[in-house]
Amino acid sequence: MITTENITNGVNVDQLVATIQAVQETPSLAKFEFRAKTDWVDGGYCKTRVKEFYGVGAEDETRKEAFTMEADHPTVLLGNDYAANPAEIVLHALGSCLTAAMTYHAAAHGIEIEAMESTLKGGADLQGFLGLDPNVRKGLESINVKFKVKSEASEEQLRELAKFSPVFDMISNPTPVSIEFEK
Amino acid sequence: MITTENITNGVNVDQLVATIQAVQETPSLAKFEFRAKTDWVDGGYCKTRVKEFYGVGAEDETRKEAFTMEADHPTVLLGNDYAANPAEIVLHALGSCLTAAMTYHAAAHGIEIEAMESTLKGGADLQGFLGLDPNVRKGLESINVKFKVKSEASEEQLRELAKFSPVFDMISNPTPVSIEFEK
Repeated sequence: MITTENITNGVNVDQLVATIQAVQETPSLAKFEFRAKTDWVDGGYCKTRVKEFYGVGAEDETRKEAFTMEADHPTVLLGNDYAANPAEIVLHALGSCLTAAMTYHAAAHGIEIEAMESTLKGGADLQGFLGLDPNVRKGLESINVKFKVKSEASEEQLRELAKFSPVFDMISNPTPVSIEFEK
Repeated sequence: MITTENITNGVNVDQLVATIQAVQETPSLAKFEFRAKTDWVDGGYCKTRVKEFYGVGAEDETRKEAFTMEADHPTVLLGNDYAANPAEIVLHALGSCLTAAMTYHAAAHGIEIEAMESTLKGGADLQGFLGLDPNVRKGLESINVKFKVKSEASEEQLRELAKFSPVFDMISNPTPVSIEFEK
């Protein structure tokens, strides 16, 4: 018997359907925990290591190498500009997550996407970070994302698919962050 | 006249004080806009380019090279695991931003930090992303950050300094995200 894989938008739809069915039968498989370790190097420069995670009922054993990511600040923000700054990294996470949410959910619905790119912008008023005005927020005030998508899908369809993005949820809605200190 | 630079925690404190004074005199200098361009490659794999930004009253001209960042998904999430996934990238942005907020604000207060590292964890239930249960959120349900800091500062002091982190604000409080589509 010859079988061909059912791939849409680079996503293996058979595997996606099998994953959804497995989670419907055993909801505990959907529990994931992602982890990171951030080391301060100097000033505003950090390196983060990402490798281990929990999911599908077990500690992951497929990821063989750790990923190292860097963050720094541009010279006008007193850094050495060795890497993108944390706000820019959030834009990267958001753009990537919205994009993946659309390709995965489009694939599940049989919607083909030929090409997709997005530009993201976020404005900040540093009076918040510097503690000069308690009425000014510390983070980006808002983020605008402009998508250019080559697809037969309508804008309404794409907009609905984008809403499945976990990072879009985490940024547009509150995500509780607890901070502990060990000496 | 011999002058020595006043550096604490790798942060140039004289420049930091000068920046604060400049912003107090001309608040519009504090307006920044950060930008990113995310290109979809295939499946859940994206590349983001970061370079231009606006700040201190002008388009930046100091950053000579663009930064390229990648995002993918592990094989159990139907990716090729070429890079960390967007949720892990958010942990990286958060860990780096909390760390920089502490080093900068500690420097401004004359508090020395000798070493600092943090581990971050965030749990997710994929029933949200998969659209299987509308009561389950799509993003990480909560994030825990454990800091290990070598400093004379008290836990209370460090905790206050961490609260200046822009990414901590963006994640723990809602940040409006507008999405537009151009065909």
